[in-house]
Amino acid sequence: MPRSAAGPEIERLIQLLAKLPGLGPRSARRAALHLVTRRERLMEPLSDALRVACERVTECPTCGNVDTQSPCAICRDPGRDGSVIVVVEHVSDLWALERSGATDARYHVLGGTLSALDGRGPEDLNIAGLIERAKAPEVREVILAVNATVEGQTTAHYVTDLLAGADVKVTRLAHGVPVGGELDYLDDGTLAAAIRSRTTF
Amino acid sequence: MPRSAAGPEIERLIQLLAKLPGLGPRSARRAALHLVTRRERLMEPLSDALRVACERVTECPTCGNVDTQSPCAICRDPGRDGSVIVVVEHVSDLWALERSGATDARYHVLGGTLSALDGRGPEDLNIAGLIERAKAPEVREVILAVNATVEGQTTAHYVTDLLAGADVKVTRLAHGVPVGGELDYLDDGTLAAAIRSRTTF
Repeated sequence: MPRSAAGPEIERLIQLLAKLPGLGPRSARRAALHLVTRRERLMEPLSDALRVACERVTECPTCGNVDTQSPCAICRDPGRDGSVIVVVEHVSDLWALERSGATDARYHVLGGTLSALDGRGPEDLNIAGLIERAKAPEVREVILAVNATVEGQTTAHYVTDLLAGADVKVTRLAHGVPVGGELDYLDDGTLAAAIRSRTTF
Repeated sequence: MPRSAAGPEIERLIQLLAKLPGLGPRSARRAALHLVTRRERLMEPLSDALRVACERVTECPTCGNVDTQSPCAICRDPGRDGSVIVVVEHVSDLWALERSGATDARYHVLGGTLSALDGRGPEDLNIAGLIERAKAPEVREVILAVNATVEGQTTAHYVTDLLAGADVKVTRLAHGVPVGGELDYLDDGTLAAAIRSRTTF
């Protein structure tokens, strides 16, 4: 490790910041310096915000979303369409869908995908909870909004089989050309899917 | 602002993380999610590290470095060469020089450069402190390690004039080809300087 002008406390801060996605050792050092040279404006507010988050943020027992209230704001929102459950792999997917405003349904976070390689089996995912929720009388549809990867699709098939018991329609996201996407840059699989699922103009 | 699935506490965390260099709004959101889903492993340690930094980190009254002790470790280190003061613009420059291990002298952080455009005058920089330190009998040389920018060089000239009173040798960093640099990619000014300051092989 190179000689450093920073004390152990600052070094510790740098090491922790370096664990954030998007920050490497170098940028973490810059970020730490940015913080310690902006104490009132940034470091103290961030410290407070983190403490508050540590104290209040919990995982929603119903859907697996992270929020400061339990159940989470989405599960508590009476304006939400309780007849549809959107199943996602990670909380980040849930946030992405919320940002898009594509649905006002409720969600269910699996916490990942089945993966023989990584040794993740059904018991490692929150699948049991989904089956339970799907059995509720008001639930009519389960949208499998998992990634279009091998693991994602494998998981989708597995979940679909388990949902056969519940009286719900199981759907998945459409494949096709991304809005604004150029055909020239798309993979064959996507193009084939886009042709297959073509719609009348 | 797009609809968000995160509570106000998490939104606040995202906004503050987005102020760190290297993190935009998008990556800050990812970083916040990374934190709240890794409470014990990352969020709580980082919260503690920040609190400690907030409590302990101070600016060295002598050189302007940031450290958890005052004066800073460098100013207290008896092994340092007290006869040389390396003048830098920012603490980040000090850290960079320390990492390089290029000098075991003491430092002086100006806190920026003179800039008519940004309305930064001498009173905004820690120049008075430098002149005082330079007057100390043990100080023999002041190395102006400011950036090779117009503002940096302007500041260097201004400081040099003020140091005329003190009995010190004033030097500046050498211009030339960066180690590992390819001539083809260097600007004319650098090449001209490298030729001017050529040394016997």
